[in-house]
Amino acid sequence: MLIGKIGEFGLIERIKKMVRTDPSVIRGPGDDCAVLRFNRNSYQLFTCDMIAEGIDFVRNENPLLIGRKAIAVSISDIAACGGIPRYCVVTIGLPKNSRVETVDKMLKGMLDICRIYRVNIVGGDLSRLNRLTIDVSMLGVVEKRNLVLRSGAKEGDIICVTGRLGGSIAGKHLRFIPRVKEARFLVENFKIHAMIDISDGLIQDLSHILKASKTGAVVYEELIPLAPQSASRQEALYAGEDFELLFTLSKQEARRLLSKKPSGFSIIGQIVDKRFGLQLVGRDGSRRIENGRGYRHF
Amino acid sequence: MLIGKIGEFGLIERIKKMVRTDPSVIRGPGDDCAVLRFNRNSYQLFTCDMIAEGIDFVRNENPLLIGRKAIAVSISDIAACGGIPRYCVVTIGLPKNSRVETVDKMLKGMLDICRIYRVNIVGGDLSRLNRLTIDVSMLGVVEKRNLVLRSGAKEGDIICVTGRLGGSIAGKHLRFIPRVKEARFLVENFKIHAMIDISDGLIQDLSHILKASKTGAVVYEELIPLAPQSASRQEALYAGEDFELLFTLSKQEARRLLSKKPSGFSIIGQIVDKRFGLQLVGRDGSRRIENGRGYRHF
Repeated sequence: MLIGKIGEFGLIERIKKMVRTDPSVIRGPGDDCAVLRFNRNSYQLFTCDMIAEGIDFVRNENPLLIGRKAIAVSISDIAACGGIPRYCVVTIGLPKNSRVETVDKMLKGMLDICRIYRVNIVGGDLSRLNRLTIDVSMLGVVEKRNLVLRSGAKEGDIICVTGRLGGSIAGKHLRFIPRVKEARFLVENFKIHAMIDISDGLIQDLSHILKASKTGAVVYEELIPLAPQSASRQEALYAGEDFELLFTLSKQEARRLLSKKPSGFSIIGQIVDKRFGLQLVGRDGSRRIENGRGYRHF
Repeated sequence: MLIGKIGEFGLIERIKKMVRTDPSVIRGPGDDCAVLRFNRNSYQLFTCDMIAEGIDFVRNENPLLIGRKAIAVSISDIAACGGIPRYCVVTIGLPKNSRVETVDKMLKGMLDICRIYRVNIVGGDLSRLNRLTIDVSMLGVVEKRNLVLRSGAKEGDIICVTGRLGGSIAGKHLRFIPRVKEARFLVENFKIHAMIDISDGLIQDLSHILKASKTGAVVYEELIPLAPQSASRQEALYAGEDFELLFTLSKQEARRLLSKKPSGFSIIGQIVDKRFGLQLVGRDGSRRIENGRGYRHF
């Protein structure tokens, strides 16, 4: 059977079922980060992300931006769990005919964003591959009380996003700002029930929250904040790599959030009972059931 | 300038020079593992290794053995620092036409060795690549007093290896036993000055210890323990992927080691002043200076 038959998420489900972990693993495969026992007050977060030429960036892309993106996607995963990124190791697969200048620029892109987010590059590996490929594994830390997973959404919760969606294809996917500051503001000041970063598209990533939380949701198309570069509302709904945060919190907490910080966060819908599935309410009032489509590798 | 011009180790040196780390990083890029502040008695070890089709295994290799190797190489790096492997994340790059059965077997190979070494697979990433590629990042732990790096070799030290060298091309590179038990026996009972796992070939990996420790070495060809599968003495000296441990300790400690455990460890030479470089003494008594050749990606 070809993997396309069960798809990327079928494959992930299969892996999740096979893996066993010991009690020091608070959360194993299936969230934005793994959550590991660390010390009395904190957990350690552990995540990895690979980007490759032809999938996550085009061949002649500016190497500064490629390096930046390789690091930024992992920082975004740490933020999605409410944590602070700390350390990473970087594996680079390079074609034999690569230029030292390109590698230098790529590395500069990595180091620049690492400096801003105070992430230490502590190791790596080099290999010969026929396409430029970068895999970053990152460690972060989060206070136990501030950990947020995909699985905590509750019926009645308000669904919010940071920033504006869409425009990733126009270049945002290379220049996005990982939302560590926003995530920390949220977890330090509010009780956030569930959170994820939008990497596969709003609808698909919301469906990950719904699946993990065993809930449904209603999303209002007209409430979705569009980025000026967004080609269409469709892009904001289904295209991946916005790297904004999608999160849920109680009505009271949502009210408090919007009164404390009226810009930068948008309400887009509400968590409902599982049996309603994921319903998208169009601007004309029409409802349609979404099945979680978005970006998939297979 | 093409990267072949400065080579894999030139590239690594370049990266090491550009990277800055904060004081919580005890050892950054350049050893078998990064060493991070952890708790009062222990450090955390962090390492990553990529294996790819056509470089680290052939196209139609048994997927069980590919999965096993992907994990084993990282376990070996943790062992080389004296530590115990604990957690890993696994990034798999798969061609679009891969079969689910292949992925299942590969995963089984990973899980089987993880079970033996009590390593938790806690997360991962999937990507579409045109060649099968697996990158594993692993976390381990080591008591502060038991940490061993490449940089501690001292003039007069005895140089030892575990097991027998060569034979990796005949298949040992897919079936090797990561030397965690041996490493733990060594660090818990002896003062080991420097250690590395032999992944690029005995001579090249010894030259990494010499460079980090600012010393020279004399190695006696006739003392090198040959694996029965080894095609030649040349293979034992220069071929990569033995994944045995290469370590140095004082004469007194070496004597104590061999009296306590007369098999499983072999003396192959001695650490000398830096100005002697790396000298290989042939069976006929001839001496030649080695410049550290072995496996290189670029």
